[in-house]
Order: sequence, then C-alpha cells, then structure tokens
Amino acid sequence: MSANTFGEVFKVTTFGESHGPALGVVIDSCPAGISFDSDLLAGNLRRRRPGVHASVSQRNEKDEVEILSGVYQGMTLGTPIAMMVRNQDARSQDYKDVEISPRIGHADDVWKRKFGHVDPRGGGRASGRETVARVMAGSVAQMLVKKYSPQTQVLGWSQQIGPYEINPEEKSLINQKRIDESPLRFPSSLSNKVEALLTEAIQKGESYGGTAEILVQSPPPNLGQPVFHKLKADLAAAIMSVGATAGVEIGSGANSSSQVGTDFHEQMESPLYGGIRGGISTGENISLRTYFKPTSSIKDVAKKGRHDPCIVPRAIPVLESMVWLVIADHILWQRKDR
Amino acid sequence: MSANTFGEVFKVTTFGESHGPALGVVIDSCPAGISFDSDLLAGNLRRRRPGVHASVSQRNEKDEVEILSGVYQGMTLGTPIAMMVRNQDARSQDYKDVEISPRIGHADDVWKRKFGHVDPRGGGRASGRETVARVMAGSVAQMLVKKYSPQTQVLGWSQQIGPYEINPEEKSLINQKRIDESPLRFPSSLSNKVEALLTEAIQKGESYGGTAEILVQSPPPNLGQPVFHKLKADLAAAIMSVGATAGVEIGSGANSSSQVGTDFHEQMESPLYGGIRGGISTGENISLRTYFKPTSSIKDVAKKGRHDPCIVPRAIPVLESMVWLVIADHILWQRKDR
Amino acid sequence: MSANTFGEVFKVTTFGESHGPALGVVIDSCPAGISFDSDLLAGNLRRRRPGVHASVSQRNEKDEVEILSGVYQGMTLGTPIAMMVRNQDARSQDYKDVEISPRIGHADDVWKRKFGHVDPRGGGRASGRETVARVMAGSVAQMLVKKYSPQTQVLGWSQQIGPYEINPEEKSLINQKRIDESPLRFPSSLSNKVEALLTEAIQKGESYGGTAEILVQSPPPNLGQPVFHKLKADLAAAIMSVGATAGVEIGSGANSSSQVGTDFHEQMESPLYGGIRGGISTGENISLRTYFKPTSSIKDVAKKGRHDPCIVPRAIPVLESMVWLVIADHILWQRKDR
Amino acid sequence: MSANTFGEVFKVTTFGESHGPALGVVIDSCPAGISFDSDLLAGNLRRRRPGVHASVSQRNEKDEVEILSGVYQGMTLGTPIAMMVRNQDARSQDYKDVEISPRIGHADDVWKRKFGHVDPRGGGRASGRETVARVMAGSVAQMLVKKYSPQTQVLGWSQQIGPYEINPEEKSLINQKRIDESPLRFPSSLSNKVEALLTEAIQKGESYGGTAEILVQSPPPNLGQPVFHKLKADLAAAIMSVGATAGVEIGSGANSSSQVGTDFHEQMESPLYGGIRGGISTGENISLRTYFKPTSSIKDVAKKGRHDPCIVPRAIPVLESMVWLVIADHILWQRKDR
Repeated sequence: MSANTFGEVFKVTTFGESHGPALGVVIDSCPAGISFDSDLLAGNLRRRRPGVHASVSQRNEKDEVEILSGVYQGMTLGTPIAMMVRNQDARSQDYKDVEISPRIGHADDVWKRKFGHVDPRGGGRASGRETVARVMAGSVAQMLVKKYSPQTQVLGWSQQIGPYEINPEEKSLINQKRIDESPLRFPSSLSNKVEALLTEAIQKGESYGGTAEILVQSPPPNLGQPVFHKLKADLAAAIMSVGATAGVEIGSGANSSSQVGTDFHEQMESPLYGGIRGGISTGENISLRTYFKPTSSIKDVAKKGRHDPCIVPRAIPVLESMVWLVIADHILWQRKDR
Repeated sequence: MSANTFGEVFKVTTFGESHGPALGVVIDSCPAGISFDSDLLAGNLRRRRPGVHASVSQRNEKDEVEILSGVYQGMTLGTPIAMMVRNQDARSQDYKDVEISPRIGHADDVWKRKFGHVDPRGGGRASGRETVARVMAGSVAQMLVKKYSPQTQVLGWSQQIGPYEINPEEKSLINQKRIDESPLRFPSSLSNKVEALLTEAIQKGESYGGTAEILVQSPPPNLGQPVFHKLKADLAAAIMSVGATAGVEIGSGANSSSQVGTDFHEQMESPLYGGIRGGISTGENISLRTYFKPTSSIKDVAKKGRHDPCIVPRAIPVLESMVWLVIADHILWQRKDR
Repeated sequence: MSANTFGEVFKVTTFGESHGPALGVVIDSCPAGISFDSDLLAGNLRRRRPGVHASVSQRNEKDEVEILSGVYQGMTLGTPIAMMVRNQDARSQDYKDVEISPRIGHADDVWKRKFGHVDPRGGGRASGRETVARVMAGSVAQMLVKKYSPQTQVLGWSQQIGPYEINPEEKSLINQKRIDESPLRFPSSLSNKVEALLTEAIQKGESYGGTAEILVQSPPPNLGQPVFHKLKADLAAAIMSVGATAGVEIGSGANSSSQVGTDFHEQMESPLYGGIRGGISTGENISLRTYFKPTSSIKDVAKKGRHDPCIVPRAIPVLESMVWLVIADHILWQRKDR
Repeated sequence: MSANTFGEVFKVTTFGESHGPALGVVIDSCPAGISFDSDLLAGNLRRRRPGVHASVSQRNEKDEVEILSGVYQGMTLGTPIAMMVRNQDARSQDYKDVEISPRIGHADDVWKRKFGHVDPRGGGRASGRETVARVMAGSVAQMLVKKYSPQTQVLGWSQQIGPYEINPEEKSLINQKRIDESPLRFPSSLSNKVEALLTEAIQKGESYGGTAEILVQSPPPNLGQPVFHKLKADLAAAIMSVGATAGVEIGSGANSSSQVGTDFHEQMESPLYGGIRGGISTGENISLRTYFKPTSSIKDVAKKGRHDPCIVPRAIPVLESMVWLVIADHILWQRKDR
C-alpha cells in the first residue's frame, strides 16, 4: 500500500512536496560496503537541473544534498540511507491562487477529485520537483551497480524534439561526452535549429513533445523474473512513472510489430531483441525509447515566458535514474536465484 | 520478493508449469459479497483458446476450472480464492529433447543460465500456457469491477497483423460483437487477406509481429497514485509482463511526441490524453496500444506446421485480463484515499 | 494487504475453508534445487492429526497431499510450489445451524460483525483445519533449512496440560523419540494422569489450557534484522498467529523480568538469552514457550463428547511449522546481508 | 525485504544511526485530513526521555522534531510524512574504542558477524536511540486513531521492577494521571523502595528486569485478519521488536494455560480474553503484558555509574507507540473488509 515506494529489494521511498520544507528519499536494503560517491551524486543532481533554455521555467535551486543516515566515512552501513535537499524558495504564499483555481494542465483538478484537496504547495507530489528524490536514489543505485557490474553504463539523450530527429549516422556516434556537450542533450547538427525552435516557443507559449532514448551498455545478464517481474515490465513501469510519458518501447519496439519472423530471429544477437529474452537480460545492450507529450504549462497564461517548451532534455537524468533503480533492484534480487 | 504475485491490494499469485499437473491462481484480498459469474470465467477461458489458425500450434485443452476455495453459493467469501485447471496432456516425456538442447526461441538458454536448470516441462513458467492463470484471475477482477463500476468495459482487438492494419473508419465501428465474429479478432474487410497470410505462414514456418489495441470504456475516475503507481505505470507493467511484447503506448502515445502543445492541450477532453492525467484516471476512455514481436517458435524446424504465425489474436484476452487486474487493484486501493 | 501471506522472502499464501473443497498453499520464492522429501511432508501431516484423545473431536481425514506445481523428479524447480489436500467430508449441509446461530466459542459473532457474513462452511478460515496448509508449507521450509543448515532441528512438546507439568529432570531428557512415544506429546511419568484427566474432560465437556515448548537446536547464526524484523519479533508473530495462543516467551522469558543483571549476563552463553541477542540469532539453541487458553468448543453443548479437551498436543506440529517458516525466511533473507 | 518498515497499510520506515546526523521516519499511506497535533508529538517525545534515574545513562538530547513533508497548516496532506530529530552530540570520535572492542552486552559481536562491520556510531540501529523514530511514528498513528475512534486510549505502566510489583488494588486505580506522577511510571506505595533500589543499582553497576503493562481502552472492534495477521500476532511482533523484551502475553496470558474451560468461557466478556477473539478485536479492552530482561550495559565497566538500571520505565512510551501503530494499521486495513 506504499504508494511512494519503488523496488522489490532495493526499496526506495520518496517524500516531499514541491514547495514544502524538503524533498528526500529513504533507501532500505542497500547492502553495507558500497563506496559512496558524493561527486557522482552531485553531478547527477546538477545534470538534472535545467540547461540554457529550460532554465527559464525552473526554480534556481542549488539542490545541496544532506545525508541523514546510512553512510559513514564514504561507505554505506547497510542501514537505511536517508538523504534530503531543502527547498530554498518554499514560499507557499506565492501559490495562493492555486487554492482558488486549480491548474488544469497540472492535473490539479484530478488531484482535488481524488484526495479532496489541492495541495497549495505547487502541485504537491505531482510536480517535476519530486524527481530530485528519484535522482538521489538512482545515484545510489548507480553506485551499487558499479560494485557488482562495473562495466555497466546507462546513456540517455534526446532523440527527437518537435520536428527534429537525430539521424542514424549521428546516433551511431553518440557517447556521454557528445551528450554532455549539447545543452539539450541532442547531439546533432540540427542542434542549433532545435535551440532556435525552443527559444521561439518560450516567447510564444508553445511547447513540443519529443522522444528520449536510453541505452544500457553491458548490463549484467540474468536480471528479471519470468512472470510478472520480467525485466521489461519493471523497466516499463519505471519509465511510465515519470510525468508526461506517453509510451515506452524496448529493443525494436513498435518496429518489431511489422517484422517478419524469419528476419527477426535470424538476428538473434541483434539490438532487435533489446537485450531481454523471456523477460530476462541476456547481457547484451538494452535500448529503450520513451515518448513524451508536449508540456502542459503553456495553458497557464500568467506563466508564459517562464515555461519549459520541451521536457525531454530535463527528463533524461530522471529516466536514467529510474533505469539504475531497476538494475540495482534486480541485481540484489537475482543473488538469491541460485 | 514474490516474483509470481501481481497487484498491491487485489493480490494475485499464479502457479503451475506448462507441463506440470495444473495451472492455477490464488487471489488474496478480494472482498466478500462479489457475485461469482462462472459463465464469464468459462467464456474468457474459451476466448483465450486458439481460433482456426492459431489452433495449429496449441494444445487442445479444455481448461475446466476447479474452484478450490473462496466462493460459496455464487458469492465470494472474502477468503482467498483459489482456482486451477488441470493440464490434460502433461506428458513431460515428449519434452525430453528439451533437456538436451534448450530451444533458443523459447529463452531456454536464458532460463538455464539464470536458474541452473532448464525446466523439462515445456518451458516451465516462461510459456504461453501460464496465461491461463492470468485469465482466471482477470475474470474475477472483472467481476469485482462489475460491482463497483458496472458501466466499465474492456475491449481488445488485433489492430495490425503483419502488413495489414485496420483503417480509422473500421476502427470507429469496433464493438465486442464485431470482434467476436472475427476469428483473428481483426474486424476489417482485410480479414480474409490476413487469414490467407497466416495460413501460408504456418506452412512456410514464417511468423509476423502485430499490434493489439485495448480500449477501457468508462473507467472509474480517480484510479492511480501520484508518484510511482501512476495508473499508466501500472498498466505498462501489466502489459509488458506478457510475453513477446515490445512496446506499449497510452492515449496518443508515440504520436504525442510529434505534437505541438497548443494543439494538444486544446483537446483536453480528447483521446490524446488517453484518459489519464497526472497518473490518475479522469473517467474518460483509456486507450492502450501494444506492439508484439513475431513469434519465435519458427526456429524450431521440427515444429514447422504446428506453430502460431502471429500471437496477437490469442494475446488479446490476456491483455484484457491484465487490464482488469490493474483496474480492480486500484479500485480497492482508492477506497482508502479519502 | 495480503492477509493470508506469511514471510518476507520465503512467501507462503494459504487458502481453503474448513468445509470447502480443499485446503492448500502456494510458496513463492523457494529456490530451485531443494530436495523434496515427500515422506517428511506426509509424516508431518500425520503428526498434525489427532492422537487417541484428541481424535474424538477431529474429523477423520486422510490428508493426502497433491502437489500441483513447483516440484519435478524430487527437486524444487524455483517456480511456485502449490500443494493441496481435499476435504473429504465437505458436507456443508451439516453446518446449516451455523447460519442460524453463530457459535460464540468459535468467534463466529466476531467474523459476522467484521465481514458481514458467517462462513457456513464450518468456521471458514478461522478453523483449526486451516493449519493443514501451515504444516504443508512448514514442511517445505524444513526441507530448505535441511539444505542450508542440516544440523538444525526443531523439537516441540507439551510442557504443561491443566494441572500437570513436566519436571526439570524429565525435561532435560526430552528428545524426538520420547515425544513421539507419548500420544499427548507429554513425555513424563505423569502421562497417565493427564490421559485420565482428558478422558474425563471429554465426557464432562470440560477443557484445559496448557503450555507448549519449542526448542530450536543448532539454528543458523545471523538470522534476523536489527529493527522491526528481529528474529524474536518474527517468531512471536508466527506463534501468536496460531489459534488459542495467549502468550509467548523466548529464552528465560517471564523469568528474565525477575533476574538481576549481574547474574543474568554472567551466563552469556546460557539459555537465558534464548539464543537471540540484538534480535539476531547467535547460533545457540533457541527456546520458546507458548501459553494456550482452554479450547472453547465446550460451550457447544450439542458437541459434548466430541470436542478436544486440550489443544496443546495437536498444536505442536503447527507451532513447529511456523518456526520452520521463520527460519527458512530469514535464511534466504540473510543471504543478501553481506 | 524492507527490514526497517513496519505496518501493512499505515507503512512506517525509520532511519538513523545512534550517533549519525539524524533519526527519522517516513510514513506512507497516512490519509489526508488528519489533524496534526504537534503538542501530542512533543509530549510523547518528552515522555520517552529518561526520568530521574534513567537520565544517568541517557544522552541529554532535546529531540526537537522537524517536519519535512506531508503536513501543511496543521493537517496531513495524504503525501508521505517525513520527520526527523537531529543528534546533538553525534561525536563518533567518542566511540573509537567500539571499533577496537565490540561491546558484548550491546550485541556488537552479533552485528559484526552478520554485517561484516561494527557500526562505529554507537551501536548503529541496534540502539535505544532508534526508538525516537518509533515514538514519532506512533504519535501520528495516535492522531489517526483519534479521528476514527476518538474514545480509544493506550495506557502503559511499569507493573513490576526487580522484586517489587504493583498490587491488584493499586492496579485497579491506575490512570494516566497517576502514571505521569510517578517518575518510574510505577504508581504504587512501593515507589520509594524502587527508586532506592535503582539508585543503588546505578552505583553498583547492577540492573533489574521488569514487566510493563499496556491497556488499550475502548479499541475499535473488528481489527485484525483471521489467519496470519491476527491482531494478537501483529501486537506480539510489534512489542517483541522492542529491545530487551523476552515475552509478551495478551489477556490472561500465561494464566490462561492453567485455566479450566468451563470457568474461562463463562466469563466471555471478561478481561481473560483480552479483547481479542478469533484474532479479531471485540471492542472490549485489550491488555498486554511484556517481560524485560535486565539491561546489559553493566558489563561495560567503564560506563558504570552512567547506565540505566532498569529499562522498563523508559520503554513504556515506545511500547505505547508500537501499539498505536498496530491499531492505526488495522483501522485502515479494516476499512476495506466490507
């Protein structure tokens, strides 16, 4: 019944409202002896923060993590790891109007119908701000995976923004460096055009949907359970728990539906399978594609000029965190299988 | 740690190997006083069984349900509901060859690496046969939903099989009757062409991917939790836990990524949103699209002529069952929210 | 929310009403490769059945186990293990009177208030018959412990029945053989007196409380979690989930409250500690004492002459099963701790 | 697998090491609209702190609660409630010696064997300090119970300390006021003798076991589930999860084992039953007795003069908190039963 917990073994519970005192997470069942990499954590939180364009809509928070428990002298203790960041501009008085007129685009009306109140603190849990806690948790998951499967990497980028898409040749060259060099995480020669599009969108109150891709390089084999907790099922749930997502594909995804079997299975070790067979990882790379709706804040006329015209670039670190969480969870789970 | 359990409140645990003595399910936390509709259950199991073409590959089992507990005089007791069907041709001797050469297409190699043995009983839990238990459970979920939200219906059909797709006009006319009249659950004028394609495919050992669509008509509003158990996340996990799935979309899905915000949000009450906002159902129809890989059994030369050339028609009742399970789970969950 | 599930890792879900078609259990997360000992299972179920005196009140069922899944050629498969026994005299018509007048002593009134109906099938889940499923599950737990910790034994006996108690000298000589030789599991020179007492009680409609003791010999060390899942907490829950229990003590138990610290802790390796320190097993023997209320069925005048005058002897195998379940659960759990 | 989580519906996860930065708790699934009583919380934490004698061994922390999420303008939001208190003297350098010589009496040796390290921060999670988080959580549970069952009260006192016990007459007069007036929560004419005993014990490095009693007045009826989550089972687990407990009894407890059925059941509505029948609360008062071992810190010669000679008085608010947690959990659970 724990609506704010993710994971079956590596259990993560997040807390905090968008404009409450703090956002945080408690991780239960992280083993002792994991090297705690504060730089990695700080780096991931920095990456989560908005770039040039997106910054317009985002509060300028420093997101300094305070570790409350579970870590001592750079190592995990095996006890629950609690971490939090303070909300620096938690002035809920700015949000008085929310109490009066729930913002449609923010699902405030749905929230009110369900819980009987609209959280006056800026959307409460149903806010992008909540993802700070996911990135904190995902970073610890990443540290755990580093210990048990050091070669595993998770790489995420904006594959498509509005009318622009990365072409296959550019895609084949993608690496972490190229992604990091692009403020929109869109490593393509079309990058300038996308930036111009989004700059104009901010002024016009327009927004665009897009596609994010995640590539898990050299995942551990044997992750996943054969029936309900197939690795692909847990990954799909992880990704679709992120706001504004509308679809998720694994491996050849939607394309596989138009495939012919003799072709498809000839390429057994190809990316068509997406590195998961029978619900269980084979050790090959796993590719994931996520579709995002255009952001909804443009309806909020008062905020025109402050909104984020495409959520995809900012969502990348959150998606990566969710994928790290699933991998960490199944690594611990799988240790009991034999 | 319960790898064979689905649901947070309406908890379903399935058991049974493909060629073991029986397949079954235990449902814990189904309330007392739900009217138990044996005809509905039998009908769903019959619908799960293969039609004209698919029958070639499928064992001809009657799937008679035996209710072991939890139901008395046509009503649920509030105690665990256990049900099973016997496997009638559980002759594992037919499967001796599996012990010698794991079938690649069936993920037997993955299973062996993970668990240290290949289940000699025909793929064990990683078999389509396991879905009998899902349909039994989903049928009880459907009975529960009938009590709390009688107007809710779940409608599934084959939207695309190989090169053929239902066109928008035909799609707008779809209803349960039209679907039932089509052996392939493909209610279209192209139906004959698809049948011919699959007949040929059986002879040639070919197979095709496809797309299934599920429409939840008049779902209850307020289902879903705002963070990790967004309704769309639980639906995605449910659907991606079915074998051969490669992707899932909700509402406008992949198309939403190419949308422009001003258009998209103008149509607030449109199917673009897919009936879920902020992770919570609005009460509008929910549409789901699932992509399937071509079936893999064609690699198994010995079985040519006995395989299923497209899994989509047979997967429909399983997908419907998974959707009923998610709705039932969230109906019970939501009763505590206010 | 799974009210019929026990265990965190070795998860056991029981089903079946006292007079329904069958009683059974599904065990999820039992590893593959455990040797399945059918004789041990049959033996435990035989031991659960009533002896000379108790038999008066108990239905004379054979309790033949049917294994439905999870076991093949004498080994567990790692898939869910489902087992059941049929109720042979499931004639619910005999219980018509229950529908009219709920039996106070059987908590029928409580059940009715809670669930809105009285299960007409003989007390439903709130019946001693439900413990068949516990013994089936506990037997599999015992097989698992045998693999990981072969020296571990669980020994249970009637320490006190009505006014008679086993004296310290007799207690020091207790072993499995002596217990098995006593129909009332009361290996004492007072045995005859207890038998006479209970024979008389049956005729008079009288009943007696008593005390059961369980000794876990050579348990694995390091079982238990430091905070809520202390081994003693999980054992206490396991034992107090058995009907008619009124109290549980571990190690020196109630006596420890009258101890002086300097004495108590001088005997660090003594049974005073009960083999659990800081909530975690030390590897020393663990002793448990359970107090039982007098059985309640005597109120039911119509049944006089058929009731069980003291539940303790029959409860022993159930208590043992619960203890095996806790040990198996923590063995699997503990494998992740380092 | 969440070793630091308590409860099935009202889920509580605690964090924090004894000498780490903070201790805290996250409560998931507390409904919106519960009036948050900060005074009640502060009062309970104050009551948890040591009295005259016990103070000798206890750090002098103010335990000021900071609410991090889930509460706004004096009401719960339905989102996770996170709370913490800072450790004010978290100087782990004082505990260097622990790293060298694990303290036997504190189960440091057990911890080291299990987790591969001794938490150098003063016993880590296996410390009495961890109970601060339980009292925070229990206080919120108490607020929830106040809403759904305002007449329910939980009353705890020291029934026996070393050789002294409260007599039946004094016991019949116990109320909250009398308990609060006694620094040792021992409302008896023997109070002075107990104080003298403990004062001497501090000087001599002696310690005493004791008995705590908890009386739940006017609990809601219908709490508990019929099989594994009998109310008595959950209460027993809750209480035995507190350090130094050696046994727990409900209702007539150990005495019921020497009862004769005709007497026992004649008094159906008497306290003999302890207010729980068939595992489910009747609405009558529930009485609980808990036995405590003598505290172990006396072995630690260096600390003589600073130790707590009897843990019972200080344990009372912790036991009460655990009982509130179980009641809150089952109130929410039971709302689904009909």
